[in-house]
Amino acid sequence: MSITQPKGFRAAGVACGLKDNALDFALVVNDGPSTTAAAVTTSNRIYAAPVRWTREAVVDGNLRAVALNSGGANACTGEEGYADAVATAHLVASAITAAPADVAVCSTGLIGERLNMRAIRSGVGMAVEALSPEGGEEAARAIMTTDTRPKTAAVTRKGWSLGGMAKGAGMLAPQLATMLVVLTTDARIEPEIAAETLREAVEFSFNRLDSDGCMSTNDTVLLLCSGASGITPEPHEFEVALEELCHDLARQLIADAEGAAHDITITVTHAASQAAGVAVARAVSRSNLLKAAVFGKDPNWGRVLSSIGTVPQWLAPFQPDDVDVSINGVMVCKGGAAHESRDKVDMSGREVEILIDLKAGEEKATLLTNDLTYDYVTENSAYSS
Amino acid sequence: MSITQPKGFRAAGVACGLKDNALDFALVVNDGPSTTAAAVTTSNRIYAAPVRWTREAVVDGNLRAVALNSGGANACTGEEGYADAVATAHLVASAITAAPADVAVCSTGLIGERLNMRAIRSGVGMAVEALSPEGGEEAARAIMTTDTRPKTAAVTRKGWSLGGMAKGAGMLAPQLATMLVVLTTDARIEPEIAAETLREAVEFSFNRLDSDGCMSTNDTVLLLCSGASGITPEPHEFEVALEELCHDLARQLIADAEGAAHDITITVTHAASQAAGVAVARAVSRSNLLKAAVFGKDPNWGRVLSSIGTVPQWLAPFQPDDVDVSINGVMVCKGGAAHESRDKVDMSGREVEILIDLKAGEEKATLLTNDLTYDYVTENSAYSS
Repeated sequence: MSITQPKGFRAAGVACGLKDNALDFALVVNDGPSTTAAAVTTSNRIYAAPVRWTREAVVDGNLRAVALNSGGANACTGEEGYADAVATAHLVASAITAAPADVAVCSTGLIGERLNMRAIRSGVGMAVEALSPEGGEEAARAIMTTDTRPKTAAVTRKGWSLGGMAKGAGMLAPQLATMLVVLTTDARIEPEIAAETLREAVEFSFNRLDSDGCMSTNDTVLLLCSGASGITPEPHEFEVALEELCHDLARQLIADAEGAAHDITITVTHAASQAAGVAVARAVSRSNLLKAAVFGKDPNWGRVLSSIGTVPQWLAPFQPDDVDVSINGVMVCKGGAAHESRDKVDMSGREVEILIDLKAGEEKATLLTNDLTYDYVTENSAYSS
Repeated sequence: MSITQPKGFRAAGVACGLKDNALDFALVVNDGPSTTAAAVTTSNRIYAAPVRWTREAVVDGNLRAVALNSGGANACTGEEGYADAVATAHLVASAITAAPADVAVCSTGLIGERLNMRAIRSGVGMAVEALSPEGGEEAARAIMTTDTRPKTAAVTRKGWSLGGMAKGAGMLAPQLATMLVVLTTDARIEPEIAAETLREAVEFSFNRLDSDGCMSTNDTVLLLCSGASGITPEPHEFEVALEELCHDLARQLIADAEGAAHDITITVTHAASQAAGVAVARAVSRSNLLKAAVFGKDPNWGRVLSSIGTVPQWLAPFQPDDVDVSINGVMVCKGGAAHESRDKVDMSGREVEILIDLKAGEEKATLLTNDLTYDYVTENSAYSS
């Protein structure tokens, strides 16, 4: 149930000294026969050196390997930092006999500090030695930062499969955020189909997570296709399977978000458009007041409404007096005013469902977020990332 | 040093039972000779009943009185709630012999519950009895919610003066947020000048506060001009004095923001436009990660840069590699990369200054925010507002 579940992949996770006594370097190798690949990277204008390199590497739709490290983001490190990312790709390429331009690089950790390249060099050596078709779990552990557990998933179809790993515990935000994801498949996929399907799947899964509204400089989602099953699925079949995989990983990410005590699912129904639904859900997911209320098990629908009202009319047309809000199945607000008693709402469980009916169209959008807790403040005031 | 400092005003603050044993109803009366008035209200599409009423009342540029209550926002209360706001204005108008359309109403507190109109009726009666040219301080106390202290200010010029009171401790955000402000002056001011000057002063003071990014349904800033000094200042002179007053109150608001341990001043220099500078400062002020880092006294400039990078190019043109960031006078980031050591930054005091040089133009914008603390989570998870 990891990136090495599909045929044609080997992986490893090792401890090279970027962190103290912890796995911190991962390598994933696609042994083919196909090397089709696609990537979606952060939309932050300030992006890390490995993102700059990886965008170039994946332009031709092919990758042989991905090197990933925790213990340092290699972001805001200037031309020297970029040279470090390039050097990492060259080291891997030479060790596995590939072209450097077929090696993607991903980093996560503190912004603004150079990577310890001695550690990286030793990490490449150790990881190449350790590469194995059973190495997916170790690789998933090596990319963790404040994650409390590795995230892996797999989806199996007749004769072919998909595997994945992800890390990211804070800074989960729109357009991605300190999220590193590697997805693998042994299906035979054309580069154009890979790129298009990945973009779509990311849009409806990872881009619908909004943990703390912060967007990272390093986010990268990679899809590697080995073709080792010899099977070419229908594009739609592949799309459905990839979305299933991405949703599984996205749920694991939000469930392990920094310091969260509640997982909040915000669903907007009867929106005038997808964009309108997402904008309304996003505004609600960004309300620190609401998120603190959920932590306090307070079904404070007033904070839902005051967030909804910040979305401009042109983006999300609706009538304030039409809006219904249900929290965990109790319609606490109907037609923009109080309805059923707040006291009926049970928020003792981890899952909180906020359902917003805009009565303005036919579209439906769902976003995942979490509450704002003491532990969030602790982790992010004490941990320099 | 309050709203009753300028001549021509009486005020009162009383306890009418909306809250337990606390001042909760305030009345401000302009005895003229002029009743010039202007207002700026929330830009939230979901606005409270008193906001709806006050917008109508001030349309003609005249107000005789303002009734303000804490202990209930009268927002999301439907037509019944609107009738309550109208009834409040009528009660005051009849007690002071004025037209109801010359009485503004402001409310703050929990969203979604009807006001106790029995309490309001008794509040109007008590407040009219208590009206006094020394009542400004009591009025300022009566509008407090989670504020830990009343906020009042005054500005004196030769022969005329300005006074003000404000409340608002959370939900301070762009375009205002659970912020109620009443400004008074005994200068003679034309309605058009009052409206224009107020709009401008609010833009550069209250709209440059961003405590927690949440926007309220009830924000209202009112300016009442009695003309009792007989002096008509130059428009520019009035503008400067009004801005001085608004800045004073804005600083008091952010300094008392819910649970804050640090006041953060974000200044963006060499921006291509005011809008660009404000957008960059706003993005930084919205980063929970940065705000938690400041609480932890961590000069985490990487979180400043990753926030800056989320502002779209069309809104704020700049080159990521040009950006300098100084924290409390130490240039920790130069040209988009690490510069002076983080260790040199002293964050032990309450004031934190973040200076961002975009090197993209000639404009400068400043925004005030605060850090994200355990106390913020406590207040907003325990207090239903």
